[in-house]
Amino acid sequence: MKKAAKPRKTKVRKVGFIGLGAMGLGMAKSLVAGSFDVHGYDVSPEAAGRLAAAGGHAAKSPREAALGAELVVCVVVNVAQTEAVLFGKGGCLDAMPPGSVFMGCATMPPDAVRDIAARVTAAKKLYLDTPLSGGAQRAAEGALTILASGSPLAFAIARGALNAMAARLYELGDEPGIAASFKMVNQLLAGAHIAAACEAITFAAKLGLDLNRVYEVITEAAGNSWMFQNRIPHVLAGDYTPLSAVNIFTKDLGIVLDMGRRMNFPTPVASNALQLFTMTSAMGMGRDDDSSVARFYAATAGVELPKGKKRRAR
Amino acid sequence: MKKAAKPRKTKVRKVGFIGLGAMGLGMAKSLVAGSFDVHGYDVSPEAAGRLAAAGGHAAKSPREAALGAELVVCVVVNVAQTEAVLFGKGGCLDAMPPGSVFMGCATMPPDAVRDIAARVTAAKKLYLDTPLSGGAQRAAEGALTILASGSPLAFAIARGALNAMAARLYELGDEPGIAASFKMVNQLLAGAHIAAACEAITFAAKLGLDLNRVYEVITEAAGNSWMFQNRIPHVLAGDYTPLSAVNIFTKDLGIVLDMGRRMNFPTPVASNALQLFTMTSAMGMGRDDDSSVARFYAATAGVELPKGKKRRAR
Repeated sequence: MKKAAKPRKTKVRKVGFIGLGAMGLGMAKSLVAGSFDVHGYDVSPEAAGRLAAAGGHAAKSPREAALGAELVVCVVVNVAQTEAVLFGKGGCLDAMPPGSVFMGCATMPPDAVRDIAARVTAAKKLYLDTPLSGGAQRAAEGALTILASGSPLAFAIARGALNAMAARLYELGDEPGIAASFKMVNQLLAGAHIAAACEAITFAAKLGLDLNRVYEVITEAAGNSWMFQNRIPHVLAGDYTPLSAVNIFTKDLGIVLDMGRRMNFPTPVASNALQLFTMTSAMGMGRDDDSSVARFYAATAGVELPKGKKRRAR
Repeated sequence: MKKAAKPRKTKVRKVGFIGLGAMGLGMAKSLVAGSFDVHGYDVSPEAAGRLAAAGGHAAKSPREAALGAELVVCVVVNVAQTEAVLFGKGGCLDAMPPGSVFMGCATMPPDAVRDIAARVTAAKKLYLDTPLSGGAQRAAEGALTILASGSPLAFAIARGALNAMAARLYELGDEPGIAASFKMVNQLLAGAHIAAACEAITFAAKLGLDLNRVYEVITEAAGNSWMFQNRIPHVLAGDYTPLSAVNIFTKDLGIVLDMGRRMNFPTPVASNALQLFTMTSAMGMGRDDDSSVARFYAATAGVELPKGKKRRAR
């Protein structure tokens, strides 16, 4: 199901927005552009200030952001942060009006999503499972892909905001946990493809091939992947400023492996990719761009990769 | 460099064509359509008959196909077959006129290509290293991607024929072995992506997801690859009639691993993928479609994948 992002036509409503990092700020701004009354919180007051400068409001806690909001959007990194936002000191669950919707956007294990959703539901609020696909730039353009599952009522309340943030909204089922499962299938592939891309481009360097030609040929051939096309330019530029960090994939592939172990389902491809991200992180590159797996190969095998003139501004 | 396939305008020349299987026959027919005088040989006389029925000529040996030809195109599976075509009993090398061009299209290790090319050159003929990308259907449409390297003179002689067979022709260098290296980089990625796609779709089945929705979402998300998009429909249809067989990848990933070992370059991604193809082959599916790796996962983990009503005609 594809829906074009468009400005919201109905009356302005308050949205609480938690987590104003690279992804969250762009999404919150898309909501402001869609005429929502956005109250944002971030652990960095500076980030909340950027939202205020863009027409939103800075809140001092998740609780303050959520007071009287029909919808709370939570764009943090993992289960622990999502639980802190909802249930911690200054958390938002108690402040949310009955019947309002909490959108959990962090990439989390489906079981954890179901558990959190049950606690939200027990408090008479609705939970929408809404992992994201697409980077910070797409978030800024209101052009994310959002995978979503939850009750029809939760969708009815959140759909206007979802459409303001997403170029593509996939409504995948009526229970939290389904969208999270789709996201983990995607992360399995994304991680495996980054590892493969990094092995292939360094292998090509070892063979003495012109790496720009390799990029040109592969992106038009059967060996292409979205990740090869998107990440290998970082390697060719020698610029490992993080757009998405190595440690995102040690986390996400770790979730895939945990899920596999619980289901007694073998995941040798994800397991192998996780080892490569872990080795890259262990070499000190955990916060660098995930294409740094190529630097792990290069360091291991004594291969020269292109060097950047200077790092991009973060 | 992209060139549109178009009919050849210059005078008709004889082309010898060795290997008229799923790929070769389509390519030979594209040459016939381009007004070349094509003399084809295949170990199966029936295959050569199909070329004759399409306006070409059936030859009884590589030697007969090559007699007086300015160009010989060899579309076989591996090094052993290519060497037999050139140097074996009834082989074509001695029959080729001095200065004529031999196009080797099999996927072969770059070192083997350089060795064969040296023997061809020593006999005063030219060698063009021309591995292919794209399946039988693109071959039939004259819409292959051809990776090519060799001397400018060899290109000058072969270019008309190359353009008749390829939608995209990449001229990658002036020595045989370069194009073969590009092809192996592609095969590393292609094999890794098939293995990842099969792990991911079976993981999704184990999670109880709607596999058609998974296909729809992934092909629009960051987890997509050319192989996921191309091969998973075989799994969704439960149809493992080979378009490209498991054993092609046990061969090609084996070449990647051999290259890595010789260069002291680690290839854990390719190694892991090779194990998965080998396990699939060992279970008796070596001649089935390479998406059968999904059936290996399913059999191992007791997962149900879609069953086809019946197999496609081969």
